[in-house]
Amino acid sequence: MENLRIPGPTPCPEEVLQAMTKQLINHRGEEFGKILNGLTARLKQLFQTKNDVFVLTGSGTGGMEAAIVNMLSPGDKVLSVSIGVFGERFADIARQFGAEVTPLRFELGRAADVDDIRRALQNEPAIKAVLVTHNETSTGVTNDLASISAVVKEFDKLLIVDAMSSLGCISLPVDEWHCDVAVTCSQKGWMAPPGLAMVSLSPEAWQAHASARIPRFYWDFSKCKSYLEKNQTPWTPAVSAFFALAKSLEMVLAEGLANSIARHARVGKFTRDGVKSLGLPLFADENYASNAVTAVASANGLDIVKLVKIMREEHNIVLGGGQQSLAGKIFRIGHMGWVTEEDIETVVSALEVALPKAGFVK
Amino acid sequence: MENLRIPGPTPCPEEVLQAMTKQLINHRGEEFGKILNGLTARLKQLFQTKNDVFVLTGSGTGGMEAAIVNMLSPGDKVLSVSIGVFGERFADIARQFGAEVTPLRFELGRAADVDDIRRALQNEPAIKAVLVTHNETSTGVTNDLASISAVVKEFDKLLIVDAMSSLGCISLPVDEWHCDVAVTCSQKGWMAPPGLAMVSLSPEAWQAHASARIPRFYWDFSKCKSYLEKNQTPWTPAVSAFFALAKSLEMVLAEGLANSIARHARVGKFTRDGVKSLGLPLFADENYASNAVTAVASANGLDIVKLVKIMREEHNIVLGGGQQSLAGKIFRIGHMGWVTEEDIETVVSALEVALPKAGFVK
Repeated sequence: MENLRIPGPTPCPEEVLQAMTKQLINHRGEEFGKILNGLTARLKQLFQTKNDVFVLTGSGTGGMEAAIVNMLSPGDKVLSVSIGVFGERFADIARQFGAEVTPLRFELGRAADVDDIRRALQNEPAIKAVLVTHNETSTGVTNDLASISAVVKEFDKLLIVDAMSSLGCISLPVDEWHCDVAVTCSQKGWMAPPGLAMVSLSPEAWQAHASARIPRFYWDFSKCKSYLEKNQTPWTPAVSAFFALAKSLEMVLAEGLANSIARHARVGKFTRDGVKSLGLPLFADENYASNAVTAVASANGLDIVKLVKIMREEHNIVLGGGQQSLAGKIFRIGHMGWVTEEDIETVVSALEVALPKAGFVK
Repeated sequence: MENLRIPGPTPCPEEVLQAMTKQLINHRGEEFGKILNGLTARLKQLFQTKNDVFVLTGSGTGGMEAAIVNMLSPGDKVLSVSIGVFGERFADIARQFGAEVTPLRFELGRAADVDDIRRALQNEPAIKAVLVTHNETSTGVTNDLASISAVVKEFDKLLIVDAMSSLGCISLPVDEWHCDVAVTCSQKGWMAPPGLAMVSLSPEAWQAHASARIPRFYWDFSKCKSYLEKNQTPWTPAVSAFFALAKSLEMVLAEGLANSIARHARVGKFTRDGVKSLGLPLFADENYASNAVTAVASANGLDIVKLVKIMREEHNIVLGGGQQSLAGKIFRIGHMGWVTEEDIETVVSALEVALPKAGFVK
């Protein structure tokens, strides 16, 4: 079996995969209602929120689109705090639906600077919402969301957070940090297969929703809310994926959220130490290094494309490459969800063998 | 185990459920690419089309939204041919995104009248597209899509077909019947779990797409096309659901599309005969009775809500109730996908026992 070390989809525990062998049930019946309710309650615990939480059938990007179309009107001004590919995607979605996006971009590999965000908000008082990526999967950087939130709330703006690869792995108390919308998806920290996006909405988000005029139907949070009151989803949900997520969240809670976050911190450090011990440079500013994914830069003649190929073909380890402008310049080791030091130890040992074959001279 | 007789989700064969126990893989890797390619090729066979076919991660309603936002611009005139809840939903989506919808509604339980469609198209030359439900799940009626298509194409309009519960169960040669867009979903005729929508696009649909200005991102067919050229999907797909669908389509093709359609015809007739033998009236015009779902009307003191409850609690058989204005007035027996006469025989035998308890006097 492959050692799947991309930053999502991530490997799932056998119990989670087995949960999907349960025969399909009526999505408008009592049994599914109980599963949906239980799942929603667990998500609230794990988001550390009293806000409404909905599970949407769709990819994480669908969840991002849902956040945009439910919160904004065409012409609304939005500040996009972007530190990589997924920050850019969030801004693209907003632009696509008619928002006026002020981009605030930071050098790849670095976290967002809170003072720059403050200046941007001072310069554009008409900004309604701020889009932030908590953990940027493309560069392995975790933003200081607590500090960013403090600034955003100083200016009383809506805070819309891409928490795809942070929730479950990295501390994100949604209420304490005043996240108006937080979006995550099943296949990152939650040890479940892809196909579901999960989103939380603060009372302020509901206010924004009430006047948001971007057209929407499938992603409409009002419909999610009225159906959840009947223990249902508006549209036929991906029932089997709900079975899987219900099981995986049960497992996350059995471990304990704090323990899961501590494990990710341990495995994150273990990965960075391992990479450094091989003589490879970390791509991300180590002060903001992600505990969910580690980006490794090239050095000493290393051909990254070749390395990723050798790791896959000779060691059965699937690493992530660099995306877009970082293609061929970095590789990424995913360590979110169902992962321990042992999984990473295997990767580091294999890298030790593969590196010289990919041109690396220590 | 429940005998799940709602019109989707439908029960899945054990092999299909087991397919989801396969560990997750890289959705941008070679293995997933092969699965996606194979799946797409099988869908083309089963749609009987040379058109592009895409698999979207989302519910069937997501697929309907995708059809609307990819084909239309705000202000476009659309004829909605509606014979029930799902016809109304298609029109609602179009309206929601700014299309000007001319509704053409037919009495519940009856098929669309082709002459009425012709008159509507004569009256409104500016109409750009016609929305049609092939098989209306809410009433158990199958429209005569071949004749409808002939009229729509007489006027050279775009034909956008909700084929959710027909494709796979009821003959629908997409190319022969000139369907510009046909949308289906995994949990109806295809014996797979919900969570995927599948859509085909004709060259004329691509032309319409090129000038369609409703904003879109997640559902954008151009992105589907450019990624499919790389054997990928634009966003992280519901990988496990793809495993299941790949397996179930393999099974449909092993049976043979013509055989599957013949089986649905046989089971459909068997269901109608069984219902009539109990002294219950069919709700749908029998000339257009669906081979995928049978709607049964009340008669002779029958309390439908009570009947559905007794069937579930005492016989472990889950029937569909009536939706919206038909709540309490009809019940529905789903017989799409993985179904044989034996499954229906169980239902008819249980009905025989349950009917008197629900007030029915033969």
